[in-house]
Amino acid sequence: MRAVEIIERKRDGLELSGEEIRWLVHSYVAGSVPDYQMAAWLMAVYVRGMSMAETISLTEAMVDSGERVDMSSVPGIKVDKHSTGGVGDTVTLILVPLMASAGLVCAKMSGRSLGHTGGTIDKLESIPGFSTELPLAEILKQAAAVGAVVAEHTAELAPADRLLYALRDVTGTVGSIPLIVGSILSKKIAGGGDAVVLDVKCGHGAFMETREEALQLARTLVGVGNKLGKRFSALITGMEQPLGRRVGNALEVSQAVQVLSGEGPDDLREVTLALGAELLALAQEESDLTYARNKLEAHLQEGRARDKFAQLVRAQGGDERILDHPELLPRAGRQEVIEAPRSGYVQHLDARSVGLAAGLVGAGRTEKGAAVAPDAGVELVAKVGDQAVAGEPLAVLHVAQDSLVGQAAGLLREAYTIGDEPPAQPPLIIDAVRSEE
Amino acid sequence: MRAVEIIERKRDGLELSGEEIRWLVHSYVAGSVPDYQMAAWLMAVYVRGMSMAETISLTEAMVDSGERVDMSSVPGIKVDKHSTGGVGDTVTLILVPLMASAGLVCAKMSGRSLGHTGGTIDKLESIPGFSTELPLAEILKQAAAVGAVVAEHTAELAPADRLLYALRDVTGTVGSIPLIVGSILSKKIAGGGDAVVLDVKCGHGAFMETREEALQLARTLVGVGNKLGKRFSALITGMEQPLGRRVGNALEVSQAVQVLSGEGPDDLREVTLALGAELLALAQEESDLTYARNKLEAHLQEGRARDKFAQLVRAQGGDERILDHPELLPRAGRQEVIEAPRSGYVQHLDARSVGLAAGLVGAGRTEKGAAVAPDAGVELVAKVGDQAVAGEPLAVLHVAQDSLVGQAAGLLREAYTIGDEPPAQPPLIIDAVRSEE
Repeated sequence: MRAVEIIERKRDGLELSGEEIRWLVHSYVAGSVPDYQMAAWLMAVYVRGMSMAETISLTEAMVDSGERVDMSSVPGIKVDKHSTGGVGDTVTLILVPLMASAGLVCAKMSGRSLGHTGGTIDKLESIPGFSTELPLAEILKQAAAVGAVVAEHTAELAPADRLLYALRDVTGTVGSIPLIVGSILSKKIAGGGDAVVLDVKCGHGAFMETREEALQLARTLVGVGNKLGKRFSALITGMEQPLGRRVGNALEVSQAVQVLSGEGPDDLREVTLALGAELLALAQEESDLTYARNKLEAHLQEGRARDKFAQLVRAQGGDERILDHPELLPRAGRQEVIEAPRSGYVQHLDARSVGLAAGLVGAGRTEKGAAVAPDAGVELVAKVGDQAVAGEPLAVLHVAQDSLVGQAAGLLREAYTIGDEPPAQPPLIIDAVRSEE
Repeated sequence: MRAVEIIERKRDGLELSGEEIRWLVHSYVAGSVPDYQMAAWLMAVYVRGMSMAETISLTEAMVDSGERVDMSSVPGIKVDKHSTGGVGDTVTLILVPLMASAGLVCAKMSGRSLGHTGGTIDKLESIPGFSTELPLAEILKQAAAVGAVVAEHTAELAPADRLLYALRDVTGTVGSIPLIVGSILSKKIAGGGDAVVLDVKCGHGAFMETREEALQLARTLVGVGNKLGKRFSALITGMEQPLGRRVGNALEVSQAVQVLSGEGPDDLREVTLALGAELLALAQEESDLTYARNKLEAHLQEGRARDKFAQLVRAQGGDERILDHPELLPRAGRQEVIEAPRSGYVQHLDARSVGLAAGLVGAGRTEKGAAVAPDAGVELVAKVGDQAVAGEPLAVLHVAQDSLVGQAAGLLREAYTIGDEPPAQPPLIIDAVRSEE
């Protein structure tokens, strides 16, 4: 096979065979197809799109570029979760112990991705002593014992994704549905879960800004995912304003503990329960979402999910006293209060600007391998619908990195729109996409 | 400026500014924009196309990537010619001395391109002693003295084209009109001619297979070219069957001498005269093509063009005795006759297959820097409309390279379609595109 012919066929809008896609992906990973040919192909895919069959072949080829996690030695139903990424996305920290409290096994493997705020691994590492670098044997042992693990990828899952993502990032080919689907699903298929819930964020703080785009992505994800031998469902959830009231690593851990303790922000609890119910029903092949949701809500209220979180923290070497004493979590030395410029109701709170502000004071990383500040971030005193009083705090910046604090404060101030009338609340759960079978 | 943003804009079908295109081309030539970003951009251009203004900017940026030939020290009107490439395209060998015989200066600079058969430089080098590696001072001196020169590029004209063409070749982005236009025109604009005639070949043996494609290319070439300060016209000429009856280096030289001597194939003479008349009228800013054509025809008949060719050969160190004694040209040691499998009329003669066959016995090069066999090629005994007699020769392969002769003979045999009725002659001059001004 010749790369240039495969590029030309896709360029002309023809459907590629599974064999062609497999050959191309594997040759690229092996280094025999160079970056420039792959870049031309990615652009052709971006513009021409891919059929369902092609997207399935792409995902399979990406899975086969690396190892698969074998969790068959762990009893029980294994579940997994993926979010397309938002601001204040604390859901995983709550969902993992919650699913374990319901008798499922949730071994979540993540990478240290780039972003304005850290990933799940970065968040948990803000807990003193918490370790995420576990060998696979340890992950399996903890999965069997606790039912909940959050660890870095031990094996390299879908290395094709790492290579392709780096190339897409510099060639204007990130925002292509089949390429996004290949990227997300390849890691979920290679991972150990039997049932996977996908949280497709939608709004100005997310990758997919409109409901239509989010729905198209969710449908393709679920359609392709279910063809590949695992059970997938997706919820489309709102990301106009940040979820919860805290954005940043230790800040989100303390907020997760609040929700696990029956407190904390309603929107974060609501989205977590909706995703959890979806995943529980999917895992148990039941269709009664109300029953699933009630069960999980009870686990939250009764503190069973909180207990699982404590076990998870302890099992991974973390200081579980943070559950009762959140002051043991790192706290930034400097707080910068953003005051309301006028009184009124918060009409809009721009998630993207909040994320950027958190990044500017140290909460995220823009370069691979860089450290994140565990204590940096943003606390949102007021969210959409809340009353603001001129001169009173709207938000607090937790500053770990001083150099750009002025810019961060400016962004955060501009993130708020304050008006006279109480606004409508932005929707939390926008849509659900489930298998047609 | 950032390459990824320019890629994204083109990907989304937006029009790029001249500044963006210039920056991208120059950064690519300078090595600061890598191949993979350029490859993605080329694919976006292929799919989305380019406006006239963008194509002009691209061509200008490519011209500015190298030097320009300054022929202002040579008196007279300087003319140039370009063909998009065909099989048996002996036109340049005749046209250069013909234009010089009409008082114009034709200093043709060519490269050693890849192809089934050699380029103009390769053809002339089959004349014993003929040298094409002339320093610029020598080119200018000969241009002033003889009015005709054929030499290799001394300065590197439009190096961006060399880099871009190599990348297009392996990324499925060759067949894009704006990219083809930038490639052709950048070298013509950087070259020394004031007026340029373009021979856009059309048919199965050419890059543009349909009249519509050829017309679109010709219109863009002439439109963009005339915006860049030189006079351009184009003819669309037929390339279903090869032009003339000889394909190969020395074979084409001997055929050019025939035409210059008032003999030789009608189709080759006809196309040469049409292009010559077009170029003469363009150079002298006259519109009377009949007058121009009659003048050139007289120069051919009177042997004035032949004399110029003799001067050209002598000036470049070649053995001018080949004009009277074509047997002094290299001749392959082996001739392989292709016989007609049946009697009838030649209905179709596939130019591409003839070109491939000539290449297989040694007439061309598929790798940069490789030598071409001066004596290899194909003699077409029968062309479309000719009568074939079973067992009599249709064509003769001149074999310099034995290994693939069986394959070449098979291709050549299959290139002929013989039927009972005399066919219509394929058109020679299909259309003309001239400046609208």
